[in-house]
Amino acid sequence: MALLEIESLSYSYDSVVKAVADVSFEVEAGSIVGLIGPNGSGKSTLIKNVFDLLRLQSGRVRIGGYRHDHPHARAHGMYLSSNDYLPEFLTAREYVAMTASLYGVAVDHEEAADLFRRFAMAERYDHLIEDFSHGMRKKTQLVSALVMRRPLTVIDETLNGIDLEALRLAEAEFERARDAGRSILLCTHDFAVLERLADRIVLLDFGQVIYDAPAGDLVEEHGSLAAMVFDYLESEAR
Amino acid sequence: MALLEIESLSYSYDSVVKAVADVSFEVEAGSIVGLIGPNGSGKSTLIKNVFDLLRLQSGRVRIGGYRHDHPHARAHGMYLSSNDYLPEFLTAREYVAMTASLYGVAVDHEEAADLFRRFAMAERYDHLIEDFSHGMRKKTQLVSALVMRRPLTVIDETLNGIDLEALRLAEAEFERARDAGRSILLCTHDFAVLERLADRIVLLDFGQVIYDAPAGDLVEEHGSLAAMVFDYLESEAR
Amino acid sequence: MALLEIESLSYSYDSVVKAVADVSFEVEAGSIVGLIGPNGSGKSTLIKNVFDLLRLQSGRVRIGGYRHDHPHARAHGMYLSSNDYLPEFLTAREYVAMTASLYGVAVDHEEAADLFRRFAMAERYDHLIEDFSHGMRKKTQLVSALVMRRPLTVIDETLNGIDLEALRLAEAEFERARDAGRSILLCTHDFAVLERLADRIVLLDFGQVIYDAPAGDLVEEHGSLAAMVFDYLESEAR
Amino acid sequence: MALLEIESLSYSYDSVVKAVADVSFEVEAGSIVGLIGPNGSGKSTLIKNVFDLLRLQSGRVRIGGYRHDHPHARAHGMYLSSNDYLPEFLTAREYVAMTASLYGVAVDHEEAADLFRRFAMAERYDHLIEDFSHGMRKKTQLVSALVMRRPLTVIDETLNGIDLEALRLAEAEFERARDAGRSILLCTHDFAVLERLADRIVLLDFGQVIYDAPAGDLVEEHGSLAAMVFDYLESEAR
Repeated sequence: MALLEIESLSYSYDSVVKAVADVSFEVEAGSIVGLIGPNGSGKSTLIKNVFDLLRLQSGRVRIGGYRHDHPHARAHGMYLSSNDYLPEFLTAREYVAMTASLYGVAVDHEEAADLFRRFAMAERYDHLIEDFSHGMRKKTQLVSALVMRRPLTVIDETLNGIDLEALRLAEAEFERARDAGRSILLCTHDFAVLERLADRIVLLDFGQVIYDAPAGDLVEEHGSLAAMVFDYLESEAR
Repeated sequence: MALLEIESLSYSYDSVVKAVADVSFEVEAGSIVGLIGPNGSGKSTLIKNVFDLLRLQSGRVRIGGYRHDHPHARAHGMYLSSNDYLPEFLTAREYVAMTASLYGVAVDHEEAADLFRRFAMAERYDHLIEDFSHGMRKKTQLVSALVMRRPLTVIDETLNGIDLEALRLAEAEFERARDAGRSILLCTHDFAVLERLADRIVLLDFGQVIYDAPAGDLVEEHGSLAAMVFDYLESEAR
Repeated sequence: MALLEIESLSYSYDSVVKAVADVSFEVEAGSIVGLIGPNGSGKSTLIKNVFDLLRLQSGRVRIGGYRHDHPHARAHGMYLSSNDYLPEFLTAREYVAMTASLYGVAVDHEEAADLFRRFAMAERYDHLIEDFSHGMRKKTQLVSALVMRRPLTVIDETLNGIDLEALRLAEAEFERARDAGRSILLCTHDFAVLERLADRIVLLDFGQVIYDAPAGDLVEEHGSLAAMVFDYLESEAR
Repeated sequence: MALLEIESLSYSYDSVVKAVADVSFEVEAGSIVGLIGPNGSGKSTLIKNVFDLLRLQSGRVRIGGYRHDHPHARAHGMYLSSNDYLPEFLTAREYVAMTASLYGVAVDHEEAADLFRRFAMAERYDHLIEDFSHGMRKKTQLVSALVMRRPLTVIDETLNGIDLEALRLAEAEFERARDAGRSILLCTHDFAVLERLADRIVLLDFGQVIYDAPAGDLVEEHGSLAAMVFDYLESEAR
């Protein structure tokens, strides 16, 4: 069963150039999919369409089987952006509570506080976010996403700049989520992370799907994801 | 009629020390109230109680006549925090649309684009927020609050660091909002702004109301708001 | 004696429009001068000329009697910008030491640690700046400037967003600096701060000096600095 | 010949625990060395010792053959930190000029402007940094480091969050620098980048060198750098 279905999605900001052009792919339940794209690939436009931040122009998006703008769809999916989009006047606990309330989800603050400890942020759960370093903010976002246990979580560069042990812990938690049948769409240029975690890779460029295949097959064919991507970027076909 | 009624509000984080201790004051419709408080005065705790970010422990808060946790109350009030709490992956237009959608309000994008022009940000309404300077982000927040036309808007240090002409324009817009019967609770240490705009001043310290009186009376009595506040901070009574 | 002498300073980025046009003014030893200017007034260009971040095209700038690009001039003046321009990988102590080393100045770390205590940041002097909130970063910058005891300090919006007691403490320290014969050029739109502290006010617009007079005279003539500035901005002459 | 020699370096903040304990390694001219370390590994302390931001307590550091605190050593090495440590009131050109002036180096602004074009930032070289997004700031830092052509450049997580094509371009420039005999010490957790670029890997933990060997040998032995690091982090020996 597919938790995210994107079908013939097209979008244009100016009715002339297509930022996304007839894109289709799926994220199966219990899978981790890596989404790769250079600047202007249409990745952000696609994500904004999925989360109804841009009004769908053409094509179809379903989350958990529901149309993407259905309230049930909203409750199924969660988007974690790359930037420090955190309200500084809240404590971590208040932020997690506010996020849960926005999605209409009950969260276990004990579990969140426990993840804080494992992320080397013991005692910080009741501190104001304004005193957190960049790394701590990223980890706060990750914890908030993990305890929400949404069927589909889109993680957009959030792993950048976290420390090595947090990275390893995050990967373990992503694998646990996958084993529990949840799915993650992981946007990152850290190809080693993708080679370790991703079941499937989608490469976008100029609004189109260039590759959409099992990660293992792509690595076998090209030697590495980096080779695949960099060779493509240099190819004449582009 | 009071748009915001705070009655005997108390709050403690640890059941021992009271961060807010039996605070009562009102914000009348069509008025601008200045809220002043040093670190630890309870100002943030009070605001979080008003917007239901902390669960009320004792006392009563009403917005537009509704209990503060009633959906109608939520639609009446809006909180603008001091920090750059803006999603960088959105354009200004998308941010305004998302905010309006969260509050269930219809906004006029023409009006917002026009305010952008007057705030010296012509052409920027469809640009990504991640390319905005600090000053532009503050102005984006102000515009989003102004076009929402909420009966009660709490503005927490948002004027810091905007340019001189934006400050003057913001003040004119606040006065227009007041003339239209809307209210603003203005948290700032810029006493000159308060002397120009505020109808009433509330000074909090150690969780208690120290002053709550018409701004004109306080200025007449103390010479200036700065004299009032700094004299109080140095007084033995404190 | 003038610690800062600006004489017939002009600067153009494109050889057509003058960002600064024949500006002259002085900052006397033992004085606090308020520098006010709307966007595009030439304030930033002027400051960059003073600190040799832009190469002088026309006119003369002297700091402490030395040409502005003379090493002695560099040691006389210090620039505190409005933004969080702080190396996050350093502790506050390391930052103060690095700044002192850049200016070739010996600083008293005991005095700095004491100021940290008075600024409600006890224990923080040896912490990494990356964990500091915006307000704490501003206070760290202020402390580093205060312990440097430069004859001339330019403070550009650095007071925005600090807490009320820090503001009051900063003002007291500026007055102590003035009493000790040092000078401060204070760029801010907080007119109440200027009315409390400034001996003299310079208003720039379109690269020209509009007002340059004792603050008391200007307040007496116009009622308040705000009235003076806002009336000017609305005047036909502009 | 070694551009960076670290010999028996130890450092303690409190005279009890050693943050760095008898560390020795070298960076050969014309090589790229990957430096990996979890939180608390001593990586930051080590780098601060190299650049004289902490006073050497024990051991020896040489850059380009000079003692690390010798003026010639300072001119040989350059440190690029992970955070947005950029003065917002400067344009990119002014920032590059200021950096060059601090190091006493002549830079080619044509080359810098050309790199801006290749980094998809054409026209931005004369814009204020305050309007740059995070990614653009990272690219500005990279360009400033590249045109400085320092014999030794330490790059600390600066590649995080830049776009895919910028990453590829940066890698190509690092390889050109290596071919020209310059060296780069690259601190990153992006193991795929290290597997593509690094000649040698140093893994620090608890202030000690755990691995110091050619990258190829380590990959051959452990399967991948990720496997090496994560296996080590889980090992009992730790």
